[in-house]
Amino acid sequence: MGPAVEKAKRSAPNAVERLNGLLAEDMAAVDAIIHQHMTSPVGVIPNLAAHLIDAGGKRIRPMITLASARLLGGGGDGARKLAAAVEFIHSATLLHDDVVDVSSMRRGKKSANTIWGNSSSVLVGDFLFARSFNLMVETGDIMVLDILARAASVIAEGEVMQLAAANDAETTRERYMAIVGAKTAALFAAAAKAGAVAAGRPGAEATALESYGRELGLAFQLVDDALDYGGASATMGKNTGDDFKEGKVTLPVVFARDDGDESERAFWRRVVGEERTDDDFHRALALLKRHNAIERTLEAAREHASAAKTALRTLPTNAYNEALTEIADFVVERGY
Amino acid sequence: MGPAVEKAKRSAPNAVERLNGLLAEDMAAVDAIIHQHMTSPVGVIPNLAAHLIDAGGKRIRPMITLASARLLGGGGDGARKLAAAVEFIHSATLLHDDVVDVSSMRRGKKSANTIWGNSSSVLVGDFLFARSFNLMVETGDIMVLDILARAASVIAEGEVMQLAAANDAETTRERYMAIVGAKTAALFAAAAKAGAVAAGRPGAEATALESYGRELGLAFQLVDDALDYGGASATMGKNTGDDFKEGKVTLPVVFARDDGDESERAFWRRVVGEERTDDDFHRALALLKRHNAIERTLEAAREHASAAKTALRTLPTNAYNEALTEIADFVVERGY
Repeated sequence: MGPAVEKAKRSAPNAVERLNGLLAEDMAAVDAIIHQHMTSPVGVIPNLAAHLIDAGGKRIRPMITLASARLLGGGGDGARKLAAAVEFIHSATLLHDDVVDVSSMRRGKKSANTIWGNSSSVLVGDFLFARSFNLMVETGDIMVLDILARAASVIAEGEVMQLAAANDAETTRERYMAIVGAKTAALFAAAAKAGAVAAGRPGAEATALESYGRELGLAFQLVDDALDYGGASATMGKNTGDDFKEGKVTLPVVFARDDGDESERAFWRRVVGEERTDDDFHRALALLKRHNAIERTLEAAREHASAAKTALRTLPTNAYNEALTEIADFVVERGY
Repeated sequence: MGPAVEKAKRSAPNAVERLNGLLAEDMAAVDAIIHQHMTSPVGVIPNLAAHLIDAGGKRIRPMITLASARLLGGGGDGARKLAAAVEFIHSATLLHDDVVDVSSMRRGKKSANTIWGNSSSVLVGDFLFARSFNLMVETGDIMVLDILARAASVIAEGEVMQLAAANDAETTRERYMAIVGAKTAALFAAAAKAGAVAAGRPGAEATALESYGRELGLAFQLVDDALDYGGASATMGKNTGDDFKEGKVTLPVVFARDDGDESERAFWRRVVGEERTDDDFHRALALLKRHNAIERTLEAAREHASAAKTALRTLPTNAYNEALTEIADFVVERGY
């Protein structure tokens, strides 16, 4: 697969486009709310925020909030503000992540910390995080505030867990999945649940959508992890190798390490815990292939996507339900 | 004044002790709420948070929330949770500040970023910030959420403004006061106003207490700025010279610079915008003295403290009103 195909595959996925089409009016309103709430007389704030927010993220999380609300017959201004709040929480997390990971690129552009420095990224992240709460307050709905404030502390816990596990070659599958559950899946779960609550359906339907979001988030992160090693097709994209370079233990590494012999485990201990060369990356790819680690990671992702779809089956059948089901399939297909 | 007197003066101020005594039961409850809400299975979170929070801060902001509520006949669990939320917002800000300022000391101990690294400080700051919103949600009071969420974005704006003004030798008094208003006074104002709202008095009384908090916060920061150059008595304490070392323009520098001749202005341009030596600090102290800049800064602080006291005069006269009045005097007395 050439770079053009790769790009088309990553930037124009059908299920996301379809969901975006279904939510076109909502998403245009969300975009307006986002831009209206990132204004500030302090110039660097809108400049830095726009650099990230207008860089072409897929906005999958706010779409999940809106689709969840619409699936249950809700929607309107409250759900749109919540969706914008969800995107702000996500954006704040990305700004802080890039500082923590010393990342130089994000969404195909120089990262904000590369251009404006770590301090600005930390503080503008704080600003966006605060603004997400301003937006939630505007909805006047204390229940959604509860859901998203809880998610925000779980996300921070997940990030700290991930930092503590960094360069720890012995990270277990259980521990890794706990990190993913907190740093990634918690916001997907909260995004979906908040949509249901905004639609006035805080009971079983909200729980089902929360479960959908959580399982989708787990699948999403595992596929990202697989893509960081080129995915099933072993195609090297622009972000390939980032996790390896940072010495992160992700699920593919867990599989290859646990199945490896002693010399392989010594290799993983060294490249995770100490130092890595470009040659090491090629050996890592060979070991992942030997132990079928990418396929097994994608299989785990598929199971979570399947659980996500199962959760939707208890809910009303309509175009939004269908679109969210397709998203679960799309998330896994990205890996191939 | 020797170091022991200096220490006694800074760590055992009578007005703060008296307010603390008046609020003893409340503050014990707030302490319990704080510790209960900074727990996490992720060990570094409570460890890092406790390092900062148990280091002996005066907790003046949560006391203002509680005293404001009690002054108006309120109090109880809601006000205590709010007070804890205010301290969490303040703590999160300190953690991020120390990363931005590359500070190695805080409250007489190694700063958290020195011990655990910048990444942990950023992420645990995010956690405490999120937990502050969890606490506010627990009160179920959307109006106080609005007040504190607005304050949180203003604080972040103030921090970014300060960063943008860093090493800008031309910073005006107006601009500097705008920074102080946002980064420091906004939280004092919100702390007081939230207390009034929690007491069920969102009208004129809340506005008066908001004004008290804002003026007190301005006075507080200006006195801190004067103390950074030794205060009126020119006593060098443990934090003396920090602002100078970081090339920060504070109000004393604004006064000395604006009154200085061309060679003095060239000095300030160099030490703020370019580089500083230890000898430069001594010249700076001499210039501040020549232009009476510390005294004039403390005079400005006194005016704000006076405005703070004036705001209290419209409110019921009781022990809490008296104690808050004393706090305004105390804040200024610190500078001498």
